[in-house]
Amino acid sequence: MKEAKTDTEVLIRGRIYTLSGYESEEYLQKVALYINNKFAEYNKNETFSHQSTDTQSVLLELNIADDYFKAKKQISLLEEALAQKEQELSDVKHDLIALQMRTESKQASGV
Amino acid sequence: MKEAKTDTEVLIRGRIYTLSGYESEEYLQKVALYINNKFAEYNKNETFSHQSTDTQSVLLELNIADDYFKAKKQISLLEEALAQKEQELSDVKHDLIALQMRTESKQASGV
Repeated sequence: MKEAKTDTEVLIRGRIYTLSGYESEEYLQKVALYINNKFAEYNKNETFSHQSTDTQSVLLELNIADDYFKAKKQISLLEEALAQKEQELSDVKHDLIALQMRTESKQASGV
Repeated sequence: MKEAKTDTEVLIRGRIYTLSGYESEEYLQKVALYINNKFAEYNKNETFSHQSTDTQSVLLELNIADDYFKAKKQISLLEEALAQKEQELSDVKHDLIALQMRTESKQASGV
């Protein structure tokens, strides 16, 4: 069953935005909190707080996108590690089966 | 050796921003391109293009943050899969060693 579209109000940088979509309210509030925390952190820096709203927005977008690209990099590394582990597992399983077959054939031949 | 801080000019939504930092120019251009593509995609939608610049920025931030949270979710899943694979590998290695020891002890006793 597809979930119903819902409206969620989030407060971002002091303004209320109504978001309509399929995401849960909990998720959207978490995303809004992440943006607000990032903005509050940046705002402590005088160079940032004296920029125009447009520049502040672009700097914030760049910073969030940087988090995203770093996460994507981590995904690549984890995917590589997982593929390597799968290969290792396949090799060890192969060794185990080969040894089991040798053991069984020795037992069968009474060696 | 720590790399030198560099200045990189990026073009975002038609304005040039000079970013100072340790990231490579190639990386920053990739991040800027991702933001510009997202904005261009959104701008095709009339509801978005008629919003104020502030609202457009917030919607863009929410969308980028959504990409980030989805990537974080994927990281969690991959980390779980990796841990599971490591456990499986450890179990199979244990089985292999146990079988090797049994085989060797049978050979030593001449059974």
